[in-house]
Amino acid sequence: MTKPYTKLDKDNAAVLLVDHQAGLLSLVRDIDPDKFKNNVLALADLAKYFELPTILTTSFEDGPNGPLLPELKARFPDAPFIARPGQINAWDNEDFIKAIKATGKKQLLIAGVVTEVCVAFPALSAIEEGFDVFVVTDASGTFNEITRQAAWNRMTQAGAQLMSWFAVACELHRDWRNDVEGLGTLFANHIPDYGNLITSYNTVNSKTK
Amino acid sequence: MTKPYTKLDKDNAAVLLVDHQAGLLSLVRDIDPDKFKNNVLALADLAKYFELPTILTTSFEDGPNGPLLPELKARFPDAPFIARPGQINAWDNEDFIKAIKATGKKQLLIAGVVTEVCVAFPALSAIEEGFDVFVVTDASGTFNEITRQAAWNRMTQAGAQLMSWFAVACELHRDWRNDVEGLGTLFANHIPDYGNLITSYNTVNSKTK
Amino acid sequence: MTKPYTKLDKDNAAVLLVDHQAGLLSLVRDIDPDKFKNNVLALADLAKYFELPTILTTSFEDGPNGPLLPELKARFPDAPFIARPGQINAWDNEDFIKAIKATGKKQLLIAGVVTEVCVAFPALSAIEEGFDVFVVTDASGTFNEITRQAAWNRMTQAGAQLMSWFAVACELHRDWRNDVEGLGTLFANHIPDYGNLITSYNTVNSKTK
Amino acid sequence: MTKPYTKLDKDNAAVLLVDHQAGLLSLVRDIDPDKFKNNVLALADLAKYFELPTILTTSFEDGPNGPLLPELKARFPDAPFIARPGQINAWDNEDFIKAIKATGKKQLLIAGVVTEVCVAFPALSAIEEGFDVFVVTDASGTFNEITRQAAWNRMTQAGAQLMSWFAVACELHRDWRNDVEGLGTLFANHIPDYGNLITSYNTVNSKTK
Amino acid sequence: MTKPYTKLDKDNAAVLLVDHQAGLLSLVRDIDPDKFKNNVLALADLAKYFELPTILTTSFEDGPNGPLLPELKARFPDAPFIARPGQINAWDNEDFIKAIKATGKKQLLIAGVVTEVCVAFPALSAIEEGFDVFVVTDASGTFNEITRQAAWNRMTQAGAQLMSWFAVACELHRDWRNDVEGLGTLFANHIPDYGNLITSYNTVNSKTK
Amino acid sequence: MTKPYTKLDKDNAAVLLVDHQAGLLSLVRDIDPDKFKNNVLALADLAKYFELPTILTTSFEDGPNGPLLPELKARFPDAPFIARPGQINAWDNEDFIKAIKATGKKQLLIAGVVTEVCVAFPALSAIEEGFDVFVVTDASGTFNEITRQAAWNRMTQAGAQLMSWFAVACELHRDWRNDVEGLGTLFANHIPDYGNLITSYNTVNSKTK
Amino acid sequence: MTKPYTKLDKDNAAVLLVDHQAGLLSLVRDIDPDKFKNNVLALADLAKYFELPTILTTSFEDGPNGPLLPELKARFPDAPFIARPGQINAWDNEDFIKAIKATGKKQLLIAGVVTEVCVAFPALSAIEEGFDVFVVTDASGTFNEITRQAAWNRMTQAGAQLMSWFAVACELHRDWRNDVEGLGTLFANHIPDYGNLITSYNTVNSKTK
Amino acid sequence: MTKPYTKLDKDNAAVLLVDHQAGLLSLVRDIDPDKFKNNVLALADLAKYFELPTILTTSFEDGPNGPLLPELKARFPDAPFIARPGQINAWDNEDFIKAIKATGKKQLLIAGVVTEVCVAFPALSAIEEGFDVFVVTDASGTFNEITRQAAWNRMTQAGAQLMSWFAVACELHRDWRNDVEGLGTLFANHIPDYGNLITSYNTVNSKTK
Repeated sequence: MTKPYTKLDKDNAAVLLVDHQAGLLSLVRDIDPDKFKNNVLALADLAKYFELPTILTTSFEDGPNGPLLPELKARFPDAPFIARPGQINAWDNEDFIKAIKATGKKQLLIAGVVTEVCVAFPALSAIEEGFDVFVVTDASGTFNEITRQAAWNRMTQAGAQLMSWFAVACELHRDWRNDVEGLGTLFANHIPDYGNLITSYNTVNSKTK
Repeated sequence: MTKPYTKLDKDNAAVLLVDHQAGLLSLVRDIDPDKFKNNVLALADLAKYFELPTILTTSFEDGPNGPLLPELKARFPDAPFIARPGQINAWDNEDFIKAIKATGKKQLLIAGVVTEVCVAFPALSAIEEGFDVFVVTDASGTFNEITRQAAWNRMTQAGAQLMSWFAVACELHRDWRNDVEGLGTLFANHIPDYGNLITSYNTVNSKTK
Repeated sequence: MTKPYTKLDKDNAAVLLVDHQAGLLSLVRDIDPDKFKNNVLALADLAKYFELPTILTTSFEDGPNGPLLPELKARFPDAPFIARPGQINAWDNEDFIKAIKATGKKQLLIAGVVTEVCVAFPALSAIEEGFDVFVVTDASGTFNEITRQAAWNRMTQAGAQLMSWFAVACELHRDWRNDVEGLGTLFANHIPDYGNLITSYNTVNSKTK
Repeated sequence: MTKPYTKLDKDNAAVLLVDHQAGLLSLVRDIDPDKFKNNVLALADLAKYFELPTILTTSFEDGPNGPLLPELKARFPDAPFIARPGQINAWDNEDFIKAIKATGKKQLLIAGVVTEVCVAFPALSAIEEGFDVFVVTDASGTFNEITRQAAWNRMTQAGAQLMSWFAVACELHRDWRNDVEGLGTLFANHIPDYGNLITSYNTVNSKTK
Repeated sequence: MTKPYTKLDKDNAAVLLVDHQAGLLSLVRDIDPDKFKNNVLALADLAKYFELPTILTTSFEDGPNGPLLPELKARFPDAPFIARPGQINAWDNEDFIKAIKATGKKQLLIAGVVTEVCVAFPALSAIEEGFDVFVVTDASGTFNEITRQAAWNRMTQAGAQLMSWFAVACELHRDWRNDVEGLGTLFANHIPDYGNLITSYNTVNSKTK
Repeated sequence: MTKPYTKLDKDNAAVLLVDHQAGLLSLVRDIDPDKFKNNVLALADLAKYFELPTILTTSFEDGPNGPLLPELKARFPDAPFIARPGQINAWDNEDFIKAIKATGKKQLLIAGVVTEVCVAFPALSAIEEGFDVFVVTDASGTFNEITRQAAWNRMTQAGAQLMSWFAVACELHRDWRNDVEGLGTLFANHIPDYGNLITSYNTVNSKTK
Repeated sequence: MTKPYTKLDKDNAAVLLVDHQAGLLSLVRDIDPDKFKNNVLALADLAKYFELPTILTTSFEDGPNGPLLPELKARFPDAPFIARPGQINAWDNEDFIKAIKATGKKQLLIAGVVTEVCVAFPALSAIEEGFDVFVVTDASGTFNEITRQAAWNRMTQAGAQLMSWFAVACELHRDWRNDVEGLGTLFANHIPDYGNLITSYNTVNSKTK
Repeated sequence: MTKPYTKLDKDNAAVLLVDHQAGLLSLVRDIDPDKFKNNVLALADLAKYFELPTILTTSFEDGPNGPLLPELKARFPDAPFIARPGQINAWDNEDFIKAIKATGKKQLLIAGVVTEVCVAFPALSAIEEGFDVFVVTDASGTFNEITRQAAWNRMTQAGAQLMSWFAVACELHRDWRNDVEGLGTLFANHIPDYGNLITSYNTVNSKTK
């Protein structure tokens, strides 16, 4: 009774960044803000590095929810950016669906704020329409651990796969030999411990030459 | 192998508030009391806001378990209120079942004290009878994290969906344009961070006019 | 796609207390020792109160694992007590199986030390043989949260239901009217907050007469 | 070598609420937001109840720091309100000092956001000028436990007394007989557990009459 | 610059149990209720074992605060019991002071609910009057860690010594040879791990004889 | 609807130790480093004790990831050791697969660093190819609890069984009588509490002879 | 008995960054690595912003301790940089003392890795020689909370003041009007929540013009 | 008002290991057992490395408290070993005092189980007699954080200095050049992260030669 391993494929994956807005970020309290911002930018850099089609969307950004995190906007100046006029579930917005379908990809990496709404609703909708959904858990945030666990539980029941941005990067890359420096730089920029390993390694290596 | 997304529908949902009694509340130690009271009242306000049929029930309220939280009674003066003479599982009380069936709804939002008994027992019974059950996790409380996780595990195995009151509100509302002010007020009253966003936003906006 | 609710039935349930031994208890570090001892004795008192057939077993009690907790032995002087000569999984001991089968019950409430071995192994074996297994999570202990969560995960996958001793008592009792004082005493003896409610209630009531 | 007990005296105490602003509140992560808001309002209600002279101040409220929490402004419509044009330490603002001196009190109860700046700086300054300083710890918030502990450490070294709003209320009130209902209401409004005790007590009492 | 070690002396110590009342106990959330009740009874048993004069007091016990924990009343049927008519600081009650002075002791062991009021106020008052004050920290409880730490900080500043009930028992006993069985029983009754050590030890010893 | 219990069998199990490298270990922050090293060596000692075929592999060990933990290399001098030239998923390396197939075993015990990549990827691949996969959770480490829980969730969905090294040892051993001293030594060396039980037991026993 | 407030003065303060080396950073486990790196760079940016003389030092940087964090070196290309040949306490190195004395400052801001050694030793030495010492707690790291608390305790006993980098910045700046944009940028770069406040504020402001 | 820095001096320090007994260790629950054992052995190895006179003592080792940890006995076969016949405070045992005085040292490093008794009592006594006391906090253990903090508080008030074993080693060694390999080995054996740094460093260095 073995199961096929639904593996991320860089030629078949798209990234959905949902509602990482300056105001909504103040609601996120299940991850420390320094760490959360780092994770979100790591996912964005990963999307750029693997050249995954990326779609940005915001909810009501002219109101208290606030504008999209400027660092995200800056990283994807040409990406589809859907400022939803009111739909809470991004999947209820036709432009968002069109943008997704335009990518032609069947694997969706979803992250957003807050997890049980902006991530879970489109995740559940996407699964219903036959997409493979991968939730980037550490680039998604919510009010507290109870709400996070409830959200994960609901998405898992429906068949979503839960991942971290690091696991996503590794599963997309497959083999270090495809590009050692590129992946190493991505890790060094977003994982201080990894950056330290590289610093120490390079220092010893250069001295001993 | 995609699955249909069982989504909350405000025309098909009823709320069951089970045993939020003054005495029993002292047993709740998996959520901080300030936060827990806020969550319970948020769920009540949400039920009123969406005009969901709401049913109140208590267990043995003349004894040490104590009376229903007065703020709940005050919010639903005309709701069915079943003071159970002894049944621990509210589903074993005929009046409770009648009240539920009288609503004609198939989606039940359940919250109560304590999670593994007052929520889990009717949740499991309702699923058995074909209802769609949504547990409002953060408006339900119990002794500690171990008992909470065990209760969640059992309900999930049976097919209950775990949600937070915030996710419930969002899934019922669907689109901010249905009523920006109403939903915003609900959030501002029960999420201090959201209230602060609105305060700041309104202040800047009014000054700049 | 509704499911039958496999509910505890006091006429069809037996309790298995596995390896609550003086030495092994020092390994339990996922629950505070005061609370853990209280939970184990609560489960024992519950078993006596509902007159559930109860089976005691120990592993290697003449060695470092130490003797059965004396309070358990004292509560069940006439219960089957299988001091296993070496089998780690109690289910591998014929006398243990015979004792279980002699009860004629199909629902097994299992608790023990440590969770991932002394509870999980017989739980998985019992499920395989067609029993309904209910793990009493808070009367079972292990090294830390990682080992507990792994054990719960494995047992859940196999179909065990996770409960707390309080939920077990409530599901067995069904209705307070079956015996208010008996159940109240069980709770007061093992839940300080509940004891306090009763004390306060009785005091006010007696004064106002 | 006994020491005099510097006790709060309601005829000699004033309250300083420093920078509880809608924007700055998003920085507070060492206390849960529901609980923190409740504590701040409890301190405000306490100040009103004991008729303590209260002084409000904000830092740069026209910028991102945002306006004073509206609930505070509403509670003290006639209190001195010093919108500081730039001084970070409120004690560096002459109007603030004048307002304090105008009260004629020597005991200062200080709370604010963030603890190590908006509370600690005026606390240290006030001690230097001979005031008795009482920090209301749970109505003050900061980034995390490390920054809180460092701030407490520095203020304690200088001689500040650390209190909770509840201890402040009790030390000011001295004797329940001064006004049972007033103090009871203050507690019931801000301590859910206390409110529940009163609800249960009143219910039993009224029924038994 | 060495300092004299102010050591507990069983001929010079009295115990003050302040406001361990059934209602107030529901406010204690910085220690788990099972453990807290155990600690309070351990302190009571210790007081009896060392025959320390013990004084009981309650605040407003006819109201919502509720009656004294019955187990305490039962252990000290003949001890002075001051039901204070309203004074929050027990030290403001003349009968309480008289009872303390009647013991003739200069070392006061204080425990109570809640720490920052019922313990801290009499502790600070007693120090002011020249008593040596020892706070039994783990038999005293309060709302949360912030309020506990603030209370400890204030009492330490004034010169109180912070202890646990176990340290108190050991410092009073001085030498196991004074009574091995008595002290061992006290520990076995209130420290499950210690009870297990004794059980295992006795079992091996008896078998090998 | 009972299920067969897929039980570890020492004649059918192999151990895969994936990427426990000196550099990568600095990334592990979901388990304390003292404890984690102990768990990894316990698994290694267990593999040797039960003579399970064991396969070592590293990722890019000449770079910053660093060499295999020397204690592992020392314990398995003759085991297959695959220094992967670049494949992130060890299962993508042909030599690794060959080494596994050469063992002829169908049960794979997998541990590694980091959990969501070096453990999860080969675990998912192995399940797909029909192996029974047992993840040794406490000998696997990752960045934090969020990434761990996401990884566990994904592997559980696919059918992996989660265990601890202690449960693995017990399930493989089946009966203490197979070798009391050997298993006891394994436990004493890696579980300080168990070592203490043995020390105390032996001491009393030897004295009483 | 009032005390003078020893306040940071930007004309009298120097910064000592001790042993923030790539290898040693892997030892820091009392602060999350993302947050810790951010705090260290915040302190560095603060030192540059206020033009405080800054001294860098490392311990044994050619060995396993590794080189100085490159981002620190890059920020202070011309600062005194003392690579100590072996002294553990930087204060035992003459060049380090000379560099400090050359600044002519009496207030020393110290941060480093690990807290109880690289920070505490020079802090205690500096106090002995009459400097005012301010420990930047959140830019200093160590093995765990126990070692941190012990280190803080020892330094506090000796008279060091504990601060956070944010408090340092505020106490040095004194008044926002000295430079709103500069301080705001420092905060936005290192406090995500503050950055979000500024983003939201600027967005609304620009739209309403 | 500068203070002399009381610094550890390897020619003037002795180590007291108090009651690290197999039975008593099961009481320690404020530090994880793997980590605690490692810390205790690190302190022992440190004492041997610096050739500090070391004194071992146990309380009632023939009873349930159990024998001294065998690894300690093995490390100090010739050290004074005082098996106290009953005194709880080791300082009350004349042989213990004689052994301390025989060393001629004035600096005492004390560690033991449990912190508030076996460490605190001799620490307070030693301070009273003019010794400089350094508590090795992480090689001392107790029931929980509350009892630890209370114990630390009492010892700090009396003038004890709190340290970690790592800080002790560094303060005694003063300069790496006194012996790089010896200190490095001590650290590598007891700090896995440090061991990994050395492994990685040596590997790169050896390869590049």
